[in-house]
Amino acid sequence: MRVGILTGGGDCPGLNAVIRAVAKSLIHQLGAEVLGVEQGFLGLIERRVRPLDLRAVAGIVAAGGTILGTHNRADPFVYFGAGGRDVSDAVLAYVRELGLDALVVIGGDGSMDIAHRISLKGVPVVGCPKTIDNDLAHTDRCFGFDTAVAIVTDALDRLQTTGQSHGRVMILETMGRYAGWIALEAGLASGADIILIPEIPYRLDEVLRICREREGRQRFTVIAVAEGAKPQGGTLTVHERIEASPDPIRLGGVGNVLREQLQPQLGCEVRTTILGHVQRGGSPTPFDRVLATRYGHAAAQLIAQRRFNRMVVLRGTALDSVPLADVAGRNRGVPADDPLLQAARDTGVSLGI
Amino acid sequence: MRVGILTGGGDCPGLNAVIRAVAKSLIHQLGAEVLGVEQGFLGLIERRVRPLDLRAVAGIVAAGGTILGTHNRADPFVYFGAGGRDVSDAVLAYVRELGLDALVVIGGDGSMDIAHRISLKGVPVVGCPKTIDNDLAHTDRCFGFDTAVAIVTDALDRLQTTGQSHGRVMILETMGRYAGWIALEAGLASGADIILIPEIPYRLDEVLRICREREGRQRFTVIAVAEGAKPQGGTLTVHERIEASPDPIRLGGVGNVLREQLQPQLGCEVRTTILGHVQRGGSPTPFDRVLATRYGHAAAQLIAQRRFNRMVVLRGTALDSVPLADVAGRNRGVPADDPLLQAARDTGVSLGI
Amino acid sequence: MRVGILTGGGDCPGLNAVIRAVAKSLIHQLGAEVLGVEQGFLGLIERRVRPLDLRAVAGIVAAGGTILGTHNRADPFVYFGAGGRDVSDAVLAYVRELGLDALVVIGGDGSMDIAHRISLKGVPVVGCPKTIDNDLAHTDRCFGFDTAVAIVTDALDRLQTTGQSHGRVMILETMGRYAGWIALEAGLASGADIILIPEIPYRLDEVLRICREREGRQRFTVIAVAEGAKPQGGTLTVHERIEASPDPIRLGGVGNVLREQLQPQLGCEVRTTILGHVQRGGSPTPFDRVLATRYGHAAAQLIAQRRFNRMVVLRGTALDSVPLADVAGRNRGVPADDPLLQAARDTGVSLGI
Amino acid sequence: MRVGILTGGGDCPGLNAVIRAVAKSLIHQLGAEVLGVEQGFLGLIERRVRPLDLRAVAGIVAAGGTILGTHNRADPFVYFGAGGRDVSDAVLAYVRELGLDALVVIGGDGSMDIAHRISLKGVPVVGCPKTIDNDLAHTDRCFGFDTAVAIVTDALDRLQTTGQSHGRVMILETMGRYAGWIALEAGLASGADIILIPEIPYRLDEVLRICREREGRQRFTVIAVAEGAKPQGGTLTVHERIEASPDPIRLGGVGNVLREQLQPQLGCEVRTTILGHVQRGGSPTPFDRVLATRYGHAAAQLIAQRRFNRMVVLRGTALDSVPLADVAGRNRGVPADDPLLQAARDTGVSLGI
Repeated sequence: MRVGILTGGGDCPGLNAVIRAVAKSLIHQLGAEVLGVEQGFLGLIERRVRPLDLRAVAGIVAAGGTILGTHNRADPFVYFGAGGRDVSDAVLAYVRELGLDALVVIGGDGSMDIAHRISLKGVPVVGCPKTIDNDLAHTDRCFGFDTAVAIVTDALDRLQTTGQSHGRVMILETMGRYAGWIALEAGLASGADIILIPEIPYRLDEVLRICREREGRQRFTVIAVAEGAKPQGGTLTVHERIEASPDPIRLGGVGNVLREQLQPQLGCEVRTTILGHVQRGGSPTPFDRVLATRYGHAAAQLIAQRRFNRMVVLRGTALDSVPLADVAGRNRGVPADDPLLQAARDTGVSLGI
Repeated sequence: MRVGILTGGGDCPGLNAVIRAVAKSLIHQLGAEVLGVEQGFLGLIERRVRPLDLRAVAGIVAAGGTILGTHNRADPFVYFGAGGRDVSDAVLAYVRELGLDALVVIGGDGSMDIAHRISLKGVPVVGCPKTIDNDLAHTDRCFGFDTAVAIVTDALDRLQTTGQSHGRVMILETMGRYAGWIALEAGLASGADIILIPEIPYRLDEVLRICREREGRQRFTVIAVAEGAKPQGGTLTVHERIEASPDPIRLGGVGNVLREQLQPQLGCEVRTTILGHVQRGGSPTPFDRVLATRYGHAAAQLIAQRRFNRMVVLRGTALDSVPLADVAGRNRGVPADDPLLQAARDTGVSLGI
Repeated sequence: MRVGILTGGGDCPGLNAVIRAVAKSLIHQLGAEVLGVEQGFLGLIERRVRPLDLRAVAGIVAAGGTILGTHNRADPFVYFGAGGRDVSDAVLAYVRELGLDALVVIGGDGSMDIAHRISLKGVPVVGCPKTIDNDLAHTDRCFGFDTAVAIVTDALDRLQTTGQSHGRVMILETMGRYAGWIALEAGLASGADIILIPEIPYRLDEVLRICREREGRQRFTVIAVAEGAKPQGGTLTVHERIEASPDPIRLGGVGNVLREQLQPQLGCEVRTTILGHVQRGGSPTPFDRVLATRYGHAAAQLIAQRRFNRMVVLRGTALDSVPLADVAGRNRGVPADDPLLQAARDTGVSLGI
Repeated sequence: MRVGILTGGGDCPGLNAVIRAVAKSLIHQLGAEVLGVEQGFLGLIERRVRPLDLRAVAGIVAAGGTILGTHNRADPFVYFGAGGRDVSDAVLAYVRELGLDALVVIGGDGSMDIAHRISLKGVPVVGCPKTIDNDLAHTDRCFGFDTAVAIVTDALDRLQTTGQSHGRVMILETMGRYAGWIALEAGLASGADIILIPEIPYRLDEVLRICREREGRQRFTVIAVAEGAKPQGGTLTVHERIEASPDPIRLGGVGNVLREQLQPQLGCEVRTTILGHVQRGGSPTPFDRVLATRYGHAAAQLIAQRRFNRMVVLRGTALDSVPLADVAGRNRGVPADDPLLQAARDTGVSLGI
């Protein structure tokens, strides 16, 4: 038996632990030969694979990034390197040439969509979900998310001491374009005073009210804001300008917009920090290493059971799987009745409304 | 409304986050007055409480230990300070005197048993489970456990580099007298070669076989062994001596026994480290802070709903509760068919059998 | 004996360890009464002090920030709160009223200047240097710097894995307006490929050359750039615009300028992260806690010896002191012949020239 | 030019950073060919070397352990593998056969002694000091020490919270058979109440007095004790028994002895933790990575200058070198007038006397 593995989309702590668990399980259980595809789907297009034996995956459980490399935009159905042409037939030919009995695709929404379309062309595929934002439908918790929350929490802990010493409003902008899980969990973990997420458009006057109230008593305020958070209604000129910009990070992001809006109305200083890529790099937390190992093991089990064109998912504490056909294009934001939101509210955290 | 809180049994990262969430929720939601009972049930016996207002619980979400103090052996039904007499009536009188409408007991198996018996005397109690070993029945994951796994994983990561450099067998003895969760998860997270847990009596010859095989190739071996792990059958003279000892840590523990058994049979050096109390101290991981906050909030919700004599539990991703009457004396070891065990085996980890 | 302590300027990990060591030393050695002045010199102006007994400084050695609070702009000689008037006579009166036998000022360049001028008015002052950038003249290493280097190194380690996985140029902008110590040490510690510091104006074409060369082979490049780094000569329109801006962080900083300059010339993606305030918050490293304790102890010793109007300094491994009169306005950048620069160059790190 | 590198003695965080800096400097500066000798002097005896090119040392600056392996007992002058015979002539022949123009020996006291004797036979040697205990004469601070202090401080911080919660005496036994630097710096960094080091034999009654005094007020005590610490005079039966034992760790170490001595005299519980090998494994702190890089670079510079049979040392902030002949057998304990000791005493830390 011969199995290929690739990692697609943005990198994420735990990818190597998944790769290792898939390879080790297939080799130990099935005596399979495992091939690593380089740089996501690009490796299938550009015909770059390498053998993944036990030696190749030794000692990588704690390593950040992906030993296979990844690529954000390589889609065989609309290949940027061929002027947007569909090169999926060539990919199919390459998969057959390699004699792959299965292909494991570790990736996010976009990668699962490609995986699904490749499976329709006859490649036996097993998907493994990857999203640092924890916003994939069907699965309760993705590897990488715990690490991101840990990094953001550490930053919030640090900002709190500096905010406290200077009597400032400290804003931390976190990842999360469409889902606020990182800001919400890290905000709760660090005792942030205000948490703003995309799912709950905030009221600027409410944010101001809290900052002023705290200025009088505790003298400082910590705000965790997801990059996709938006104010309610109105003509959001500055914000809209940034949204429309080709490069929002360069211009500022919501963290800086919020600062510009708050600063003129407050006596104390307002400061913004944007963590950026630091949130997705480096060694995964032990929690993520175990979870990634379980995902990888479950993917190998699907192959052993010849249950293809499915994606492994976590439901509660158990790993399960769903058809790839059901996955595409479905995201999971923080629902309005999420118990974390209620816990936040009831313990005195403002959600900006 | 007036509510008391106490923390009983061994300390555990996340206790302060629970205390904070209970107090904040009760104050914000119900306008309750919250009293902190000092040193677990001892505070109820010795009549030591103090007010827990918002200021008292500010900034403690990340603090290790418990601001209330705790006590391992204070049982009002068999009070060591009164020659083992039952002083529960005096405790009941004190609770009435304080005018407590509810008592939140954060603790393990033993504390829940006392909490249940106090509830039978008419005190409205809400329990919150605490076990660093993650071995309480009814609940999927306890706060503190993730932190312990993180500390043990960090130690295993460190031992691996030193084992690799010297070509040694490195043994790490972890907490876990009756359940192997910590050794199992930390072992998986760090890529340990052998994981020995109480639930699976190990075969010494199998452990030896792995060490020898690795001595030839990778040159080093990392073993995570839970303090309650035991070899299969036979006359375990050394082990039994330690078990019988009043102070097993002083004499050595299973980590040292294992070393004594392996060393004469191996060419390379065998070294043991026993982490001890370090595993339960210090700041909780962000995961544990969020989980502890959720437990505390759920305990406050039970009080708001006047659902007493229940313990909050985690089922999958949701918090729920069970009657205190169902809790006592039931532990949860690693079941033989646990998916983590299968993932360990399939990825080439030896469980010593 | 009665002694006041204040912390001035930006906060810095280790301030609490200094405060604690000063207070403990004075109390244990001299039986002194210690007063904490709130928010730097503002507390002297607004008459806000509080007693610092042993209990008040217990358990703060590892705490980030300053328990006394600090203020960036409070200068009694040009008080912003009085339209820029000189209120130093009132401060002097307050110091006399309090009966202070000495005043310990923990702060940077600006604070030492004020401390010196206050000492000229007759207040017996002892200074303790504080600069996260490590750029104060006279002293070899300041507390807080090691912590900043550790935080930046952790971020660079993380960016390296994500850069490696995606084949990107990752830029990290660090603190350091006038001195490049943080970028230099953290760059060396993390194995950065290019380190750009204010003391060595970089050549953009050289930075490009390295990125291109690595794009061909290693596929990724990590750049540590101090916020004060500048390109050589030329008309630096974008850069100058940012320099002239009242809010450089908002507009982008050198990290973003560099990205804009590199991106069009490279095939791979270029990404910038700006760490910001995270670098100066949170718990100090053990190194900084020991160093801060030594500084605080040395300040107390100067008071015991009645050697006033001096600032404690570190020379090699020994603490010493210099007259406050010699301190003002002298900074210490990375000298051209610094051994760290030579080590960087000789181990293949580009300094952009 | 061809240069060999070996790492001898116990492993230590930073070894890889030294190896990398030596190799990179020699390759970049001198175009040298670098050979890595495996497992310390054993590799010279057993003729095992491998090329160390730029690729081989890429990405190892932060890795714990040594990529070359090390060996504790391999002495060519008394080779255990040849019944204690002198095989140094064979080693010399091998060095000549390899055509080594220089040999870099990274190691402690014992390795420097061997290096010196090899140099007398005509091998051009450069030594680089390595001691996790920081107790080598001639050099102010060794790489690895800062990491050990950080690990011990983290453990002490954790023990403090658990000690505080339970009202216990928590003892942590650290490395340091002959020198107390680790216990002293980590004790200071974590605010330990009592620090016991080999250089200052402690008085048990004084240790007891502090514990009792604190039992009454703060309720808990943290003791950092170096493994080589000893009580003053008297007949130290338990202690002597352990000293005489072939395996002190197995029997208990001073941490357990101290516990046995204190427990019967105190009302509260006394607990001991022995960190062991965890203290020397894992990724070095950024401080140690920079220091190790400087040591490695300085070693390469000595080779470039053809200044052989010397060991690099740190004096204050500058790297220098001393003749190997001066190094052997000289250790550096904590001197009685060390400023750290004074700082400890003056800030209320008990040294047990």
